[in-house]
Amino acid sequence: MREEHAAGKPLTATVEERIIQIIKEGDLQPGDRLENEHDLARRLGVGRGTVREAIKGLVSRNVLTVRQGSGTFVSHRHGVPNDPLGLTLLKQDRQLALELLEVRLILEPEIAALAATRATDGDLRRIVSQCDRVEKLILAEEEYQQEDVEFHRRIAQASRNRVTSTLVPVIHSSSSLNIDLTHNELRENTVRYHRALAEALRRRDPLGARYAMVQHLAENRRYILAPGPGDK
Amino acid sequence: MREEHAAGKPLTATVEERIIQIIKEGDLQPGDRLENEHDLARRLGVGRGTVREAIKGLVSRNVLTVRQGSGTFVSHRHGVPNDPLGLTLLKQDRQLALELLEVRLILEPEIAALAATRATDGDLRRIVSQCDRVEKLILAEEEYQQEDVEFHRRIAQASRNRVTSTLVPVIHSSSSLNIDLTHNELRENTVRYHRALAEALRRRDPLGARYAMVQHLAENRRYILAPGPGDK
Repeated sequence: MREEHAAGKPLTATVEERIIQIIKEGDLQPGDRLENEHDLARRLGVGRGTVREAIKGLVSRNVLTVRQGSGTFVSHRHGVPNDPLGLTLLKQDRQLALELLEVRLILEPEIAALAATRATDGDLRRIVSQCDRVEKLILAEEEYQQEDVEFHRRIAQASRNRVTSTLVPVIHSSSSLNIDLTHNELRENTVRYHRALAEALRRRDPLGARYAMVQHLAENRRYILAPGPGDK
Repeated sequence: MREEHAAGKPLTATVEERIIQIIKEGDLQPGDRLENEHDLARRLGVGRGTVREAIKGLVSRNVLTVRQGSGTFVSHRHGVPNDPLGLTLLKQDRQLALELLEVRLILEPEIAALAATRATDGDLRRIVSQCDRVEKLILAEEEYQQEDVEFHRRIAQASRNRVTSTLVPVIHSSSSLNIDLTHNELRENTVRYHRALAEALRRRDPLGARYAMVQHLAENRRYILAPGPGDK
């Protein structure tokens, strides 16, 4: 397409794909180092400028990360872009928070049920220790947003589906409002239902896990729809 | 962070966010033209080179699109990146196709049920006409993959949730295999269940819509798990 040509894309795009190929064929893991520009340019038969452009592109796609002075590495972000659903273009209002929560209510109870049947012992340990961590932060009245996302991400990871493990943190992080609203009375609900979730998962009880998640998210929804008198 | 500095990010990133702000505040719609580089540079108090870099960044994020000789426009891609879930880094095998289908089986029946209660008359007309289009292609033994995705996208759109409308096409397009396998006997299942879906939606029957979707996707799953003797 002409518009892509204008942005100088085709060759760079091809080189990006070939570098991805190299990562996959070499089974490079997050944190592994990529060979240097010079070697890549020679191997791919293109100029170093093109390799540099392609690397820039892959950095912005979170496939690679550059550490000044030490080289180029496979990113821990697994190529998941910063705003995968294009939500920065939408107004961050209550309506968007509700739509995100609606998607969470569809996805996460089923994910929790799958996790109850598929989690490894290691998964369960990681979920329980994350549950402890969030609880401690909440009781100390500290900021717990990121650790909350991590708790839900670990459950998704225990569902042993690579798509849900990516989706869950994406949806959680998509609205600042989503979390800003989770204050006050919701803190105690979070403590209660996170614990119920962790316990259900630990006894490998799919229905228990599913409905603990439903209760947890339904509380959030009720709260967003009608904040109580004590909340600001 | 140092690594971001190395890639020359901070200022460009700020300018990207400010251009997004301009799009939102001006309520610019896909296809609308952005003011030119010169005016943007003056308005934002930065050099044209920086504006050019930021525009390049927004083009690669599918927020903007450049048409050679006629200017910069808001993209119809709504800022949804090309590989939102970073799946190009995963091996495109049967396992990934199953994981994607698992997510579709969780999401799409509920989306169909919501669509049955929320669809506008216009939504329903667009769904039925798309159902006709896919059916015609299948009966003519033509390629129907893209139109199939569009059918599912229209149902998601009718659920009146902006997150599901983005997610559904993303998940559908995430695996080539996902669709490559949908051949032969599955063509007739697609005809049958797409029609059942369209009919259930038209009579605003949430359970009918939900279970037509379950049947449709469960057939796909069965097929991927155990291809019949007549299929290659």
